[in-house]
Amino acid sequence: MLDESEMPTRWYNVIPDLPSPPPPPLHPGTMQPVGPEDLAPLFPMDLILQEVTTDSYVDIPEEVQDVYRLWRPSPLYRAHRLEKALGTPAKIFYKYEGVSPAGSHKPNTAVPQAYYNAKAGVKKLTTETGAGQWGTALAFACAQYGLECEVWQVGASYDAKPYRRIMIETFGGTVHRSPSDLTNAGRALLAGHPDHPGSLGIAISEAVEVAAQDPEIRYALGSVLNHVLLHQTIIGEEALLQFAKLGLAPDVIVGCTGGGSNFGGLTFPFLREKMAGKMNPTIRAVEPASCPSLTQGVYAYDFGDTAGMTPLMKMHTLGHDFIPDPIHAGGLRYHGMSPLISHIYELGLIEALALPQTECFSAAIQFARTEGIVPAPEPTHAIAACIREALACKESGEEKVILTALCGHGHLDLASYDAYLSGRMTDEDVTSARFAESIAAIPVVPA
Amino acid sequence: MLDESEMPTRWYNVIPDLPSPPPPPLHPGTMQPVGPEDLAPLFPMDLILQEVTTDSYVDIPEEVQDVYRLWRPSPLYRAHRLEKALGTPAKIFYKYEGVSPAGSHKPNTAVPQAYYNAKAGVKKLTTETGAGQWGTALAFACAQYGLECEVWQVGASYDAKPYRRIMIETFGGTVHRSPSDLTNAGRALLAGHPDHPGSLGIAISEAVEVAAQDPEIRYALGSVLNHVLLHQTIIGEEALLQFAKLGLAPDVIVGCTGGGSNFGGLTFPFLREKMAGKMNPTIRAVEPASCPSLTQGVYAYDFGDTAGMTPLMKMHTLGHDFIPDPIHAGGLRYHGMSPLISHIYELGLIEALALPQTECFSAAIQFARTEGIVPAPEPTHAIAACIREALACKESGEEKVILTALCGHGHLDLASYDAYLSGRMTDEDVTSARFAESIAAIPVVPA
Repeated sequence: MLDESEMPTRWYNVIPDLPSPPPPPLHPGTMQPVGPEDLAPLFPMDLILQEVTTDSYVDIPEEVQDVYRLWRPSPLYRAHRLEKALGTPAKIFYKYEGVSPAGSHKPNTAVPQAYYNAKAGVKKLTTETGAGQWGTALAFACAQYGLECEVWQVGASYDAKPYRRIMIETFGGTVHRSPSDLTNAGRALLAGHPDHPGSLGIAISEAVEVAAQDPEIRYALGSVLNHVLLHQTIIGEEALLQFAKLGLAPDVIVGCTGGGSNFGGLTFPFLREKMAGKMNPTIRAVEPASCPSLTQGVYAYDFGDTAGMTPLMKMHTLGHDFIPDPIHAGGLRYHGMSPLISHIYELGLIEALALPQTECFSAAIQFARTEGIVPAPEPTHAIAACIREALACKESGEEKVILTALCGHGHLDLASYDAYLSGRMTDEDVTSARFAESIAAIPVVPA
Repeated sequence: MLDESEMPTRWYNVIPDLPSPPPPPLHPGTMQPVGPEDLAPLFPMDLILQEVTTDSYVDIPEEVQDVYRLWRPSPLYRAHRLEKALGTPAKIFYKYEGVSPAGSHKPNTAVPQAYYNAKAGVKKLTTETGAGQWGTALAFACAQYGLECEVWQVGASYDAKPYRRIMIETFGGTVHRSPSDLTNAGRALLAGHPDHPGSLGIAISEAVEVAAQDPEIRYALGSVLNHVLLHQTIIGEEALLQFAKLGLAPDVIVGCTGGGSNFGGLTFPFLREKMAGKMNPTIRAVEPASCPSLTQGVYAYDFGDTAGMTPLMKMHTLGHDFIPDPIHAGGLRYHGMSPLISHIYELGLIEALALPQTECFSAAIQFARTEGIVPAPEPTHAIAACIREALACKESGEEKVILTALCGHGHLDLASYDAYLSGRMTDEDVTSARFAESIAAIPVVPA
């Protein structure tokens, strides 16, 4: 536990400390790097400047710290009872982000995004939500600064997860089933298919379309981009202070990766210490076997969305038209990986591992019964990787210190546990042929 | 925040400090006080002795403290942002019990109950659950000591709240829809009505029937009894230490009351300080207008269950056959009140207030949007009473220190918020005629 007064007051930008910066995003028409002016219709200038800053640290505004203090510093727990159940000599620590208003790490960036938009005179933010975590976080954040919040929830999720919609509404947000009749993109799809199940790509198109039409409305994104990962480094900065109090340093850090914001937020401050020679942890990204962008994707310029409307980003990708199996960790079902994490992986500074979901839920049940917290489907991957490492330590006798981020609780995802406990959960087809077609369809960018 | 090392190591028994002890429970056949031997088929001797102890303190076993430390000490938060939104000079503090594995205060007693049963060689615990909080807590607790846990969930709740069932199963418990075909009580009801919606009274009968038949099986109750309230005093003992660190003392303490365990747990340690002349807080119980046992019930010997199978207890009651409206705070729908709290109310040591549920949910939404926590339906009553008090302070200019227990989060109760937000929630019929018939049916006990 840290005291409130010990909460870090700066976010960390890893880019200046890397041996080389990540390749810039490209405009798909000109194939030239995207400039701040290209992003201005969607984001306020403070966030655009954070996206491209070369400063190592960015001060957290006092008004953002005030809101962070509702749940931060978040606790760092040692999993004593899990260690005992495993019979491992390893020490397992987890940084628990489920204490936030949305129940995940997402408010760490939703709050500053809402703050900078309010400061710029914006009246409303639009966004998409799939699993529902991001929409919940942004609705809460908007309520703190008097902004309206309009969320397009993927149709299939809207139908299956009414609790997520209600939580967004409880925090004051408005939720639309996507595709909706409020946008051209939505109406075009509804015309031929009135109960269209939607997709994250479609929901993004709707939220962006509404934001682009009105100077008082902007759009907010919950992962992938540099400024999002920047805001999430509060997780790792706190964990560093907490380990310093314990007089320990992690030997292994594992985190789950979808778009990469939770993983980057936890690990970048430790990566700084590693690059400075102050500690030497192995840093490992854990992705779902069904959507293994780091372990089975290619490193190439590709679109961030399915429809091909975003800038081209150099990243590990399975192809922008790859549709992952409908696994339970909805937050990890993304064809690409944050360009910054992709670049760091290419530099050889981190490892990656892909795990099947039944192993993940088996691990999560063991965790819940020993530690008393039911993890969200996404961090079940991190828990499973921790348990693999801890069992390897049992084998070797090593007393490694393992750190992970339990990035959210699973209270609104219990249907996934029901699927596992009743034997209805299956693993995914992960042969490389599964990804061949979508990888072949990645656009060719001149060198 | 308290450090783990500052967690209290004793539970507090208020009875020896009262001017007189509460009247004993009576055997309904003999009308004589119930003895330990009458309770032995249902409870282990350690818990029976705690039920009748005259010691002021009971040591918390080390094995129970180990499990408590998974989430205890629980945080005491100041509601800065709610105060600001209300424009009140009052200081509002809330002790948050939603950080526990079950998301409520219930594990505070589930854990020691499971521990003492395991110590006595019991293999399995049975219980009933209505809203689902208690079943979740007991399943988690049983997993800590290698006990099996079998839960009869009220049929209507089983059908409407699948997430509660799944959470119990995730912690390793077995859940039956009640009435079930596993007991004589259940089969008798199912014969005439295959999809019988059940009731808490029926579920109790089933759990008790199974426990009474096998010496390796015992029954566990989540509220009302003295030993349950004893275990919950860890809440108030921690809060006392937390206020001492702040150099403050509460002027008003409010807590919601159903069976009374959350309220007793929070307030008894403060009541001790009040009776010793060390502080002078007003202590106020808040009950639902639909089930106002303290404010509209009578103080009389009555049965604890609907079927009239339990000992007779002297308590504030609306009559054991009173069926409250199906309000959203399922945990407060109990016809009686803990005999110990009833006695303390009769002694004039506490006040009581009944509130309608729409006021409670309106308060809860204001709380969620400012403080970032969605309360369970039960503590919405405490929040609403806090806000009434804080607005009275705004009127009078008094800078009162207000304390409440936010005894659980509402992540699995979001359907209630949907009912409120969509305008489908209504208030209850609370005219005294509503309770006249069931009060008239309370059994007559010779003086």
